Amino acid sequence: MSTARQVLERCVELDRLTATPPALQRVYLSPEHAGANALAGRWMEAAGMRTWQDAAGNQCGRHEGREPGLPALLLGSHLDTVPDAGSYDGMLGVVMAIAVAERLRETALPFALEVIGFSDEEGTRFGKALLGSQAVAGTWDEAWWDLRDAAGITLRQAYADFHLDPQRVGEAARRPEDLVGYLEAHIEQGPHLEAADRSLGYVTSIAGARRFRLNVIGEARHAGGTPYDRRRDALVGASEAVLLVERMSKEAGCIATVGRIEVQPGAVNVIPGRADLSLDLRAATDAQRDGLWTALRAEIERVCTARGLRLEVHETHTAPAMPCAPRLQEAVIAGIRSTGDDDPIGLWSPAGHDAMAIGLTTDVGMLFVRCHDGISHHPDEDVRERDVAAGLDALEAAVLHLARRVESETHA
Amino acid sequence: MSTARQVLERCVELDRLTATPPALQRVYLSPEHAGANALAGRWMEAAGMRTWQDAAGNQCGRHEGREPGLPALLLGSHLDTVPDAGSYDGMLGVVMAIAVAERLRETALPFALEVIGFSDEEGTRFGKALLGSQAVAGTWDEAWWDLRDAAGITLRQAYADFHLDPQRVGEAARRPEDLVGYLEAHIEQGPHLEAADRSLGYVTSIAGARRFRLNVIGEARHAGGTPYDRRRDALVGASEAVLLVERMSKEAGCIATVGRIEVQPGAVNVIPGRADLSLDLRAATDAQRDGLWTALRAEIERVCTARGLRLEVHETHTAPAMPCAPRLQEAVIAGIRSTGDDDPIGLWSPAGHDAMAIGLTTDVGMLFVRCHDGISHHPDEDVRERDVAAGLDALEAAVLHLARRVESETHA
Repeated sequence: MSTARQVLERCVELDRLTATPPALQRVYLSPEHAGANALAGRWMEAAGMRTWQDAAGNQCGRHEGREPGLPALLLGSHLDTVPDAGSYDGMLGVVMAIAVAERLRETALPFALEVIGFSDEEGTRFGKALLGSQAVAGTWDEAWWDLRDAAGITLRQAYADFHLDPQRVGEAARRPEDLVGYLEAHIEQGPHLEAADRSLGYVTSIAGARRFRLNVIGEARHAGGTPYDRRRDALVGASEAVLLVERMSKEAGCIATVGRIEVQPGAVNVIPGRADLSLDLRAATDAQRDGLWTALRAEIERVCTARGLRLEVHETHTAPAMPCAPRLQEAVIAGIRSTGDDDPIGLWSPAGHDAMAIGLTTDVGMLFVRCHDGISHHPDEDVRERDVAAGLDALEAAVLHLARRVESETHA
Repeated sequence: MSTARQVLERCVELDRLTATPPALQRVYLSPEHAGANALAGRWMEAAGMRTWQDAAGNQCGRHEGREPGLPALLLGSHLDTVPDAGSYDGMLGVVMAIAVAERLRETALPFALEVIGFSDEEGTRFGKALLGSQAVAGTWDEAWWDLRDAAGITLRQAYADFHLDPQRVGEAARRPEDLVGYLEAHIEQGPHLEAADRSLGYVTSIAGARRFRLNVIGEARHAGGTPYDRRRDALVGASEAVLLVERMSKEAGCIATVGRIEVQPGAVNVIPGRADLSLDLRAATDAQRDGLWTALRAEIERVCTARGLRLEVHETHTAPAMPCAPRLQEAVIAGIRSTGDDDPIGLWSPAGHDAMAIGLTTDVGMLFVRCHDGISHHPDEDVRERDVAAGLDALEAAVLHLARRVESETHA
């Protein structure tokens, strides 16, 4: 019997596969990634699954259904992390999926059951998120091969170093006709379930982030000798931009974050000649998000112009909002109800998930698990054992609900 | 006759002594330093001076006064540079001093005339500025021997490699009773003379910078899942601080710069949990500078507290302002007047100079020469030949003014 306790222990076991002990950081195509795949693969095998690493470095396992070769229901999440990460964002969903697959190993289902540990959701290494799930969705972009990590290594080279063949990445893509859908369990990464005192929630849609790199270009000059009317200080302009992002996003009911800033030349006695910012924009609908961006960009341009600064804007990522499929929402709701919660809470997810990419090739649904204080992307990430126990029961019940539905459709 | 043209040609000749051709970089105790000392020494000898390299690597030359052994008036500046430097910051003052000494070689003065090319003003190699002039001022700190350059070489080792004996650095120190004062010509490194259409200005004081590291501590959380009322975003707080620094420093008539900022964890989808800023504060007087800091710190604390952020303050550097001595200001003013400028402009120097250190052992005065567009620490540094010509005349006249004053004091 796969228990919540075992699930939590496995999450902690994965923490050991880190590039920066004692802090957790596990990025795409790293030695730690290889280690996490191997460990997850052993757990999949212990659950009776056939396992493989796909052409994009995703770790996969499969139980056949009541006959071999049936389309598969995918369960999963990701095994990569941000820097200084917590133990549950991503990993909890993979380990829960393995546990549910183990519980159902003797159950004859009308579909195959697959577990997938995605190799790159966070985009920490190459600045591009969802690489693993986009390979599975068949939406890989050849331009990505030239992305470079902080050490200057291209994605192409990193594939070779990981003994993956860039030519074969297309083999990771899954055809819609081979899939029944995708169910992902994930910590909420927000405070709503805790505030409502619920263990679980179902997801209605996943907001699509738009991400930008904003380069504010001024002029590097001597800090002592340059009076204010001669300065074109890129950092002062960038600081105004950061405050505009906060104010205008709040007013619009959206979520926007500047997570990175770098200035050049970066000397204590030199006025910054350049500041590069990241910008991440999210909203419940794409229209809200895009409206905010239009207004924000105009204001940032205005501030830069007033200071003699030049603004360069590069859009680095766009994803449309991904609605969860009604039949998978229903399955998750049924799963949550089976745990005794008669009125499950539905939430939209401001955070991105592998389900956003997989939704391009098959139906997706998500189960949120309450987390401590809404914290994620931080070592203080925490979940309660009773919530994980409820989550395992709900996910198992959701799979069985979907199985009944598929059977009734087949017979109809 | 030593002309402005010759001075400018000599500055260009010094450019060839660089570690990074075609860019100029000449640091303390490097082969280029030795080359610059040798070249400056030859020019001093051609001007009829007795020459030597002192125990701290400063290049010196001396004309005796009307009798041997009189106290000396020092003229000079520095021969070292920042990385990717211009041709005039420092070098112009040394070469002008040699030219003025040459002009006065047949003049019987009531003091000896010495020229000094300081070996380290910028602090490029060991991260500690004014090493050459501090040796002359007798303020050498034994702790500096363990400073290391980027290659890990200690200052002690670098002395040995340059055939200097660390044990003997004290011999570079000059006793106040052996000195009449110190006069330094230097490019303005600011735009004020150009804006006022003047060739020259006299310096009233050299600002002492205070430098701080400000650490703004918040909480790293997921950019998507954390609503605004749950955020403690260190970068937003730091951005408010950057704007406060600009606004309050402008209002106070001071110069303050945030040249560095680093955020952690620095991921596009994570709210910054920490932002570290540098702060460099300068003002005409220490009282102004310290008053600004007190007010600024209180405001930054207030902003941080309001956002649930914690502020840590570390002072990394403090130097008191060095006022120019009234009698040397008068000499420089008289020198500038002799060039036809009836109402010389007085400026405080926000940039540091060798005179700051030498002022600890004797009176100091400075002559600023107009520079192009206020640019320094950059290959675009430039000066006009006519301004250098006026500067040579003014510096010569200042020496003669001081000679008359010393004579009248002697006879009184």
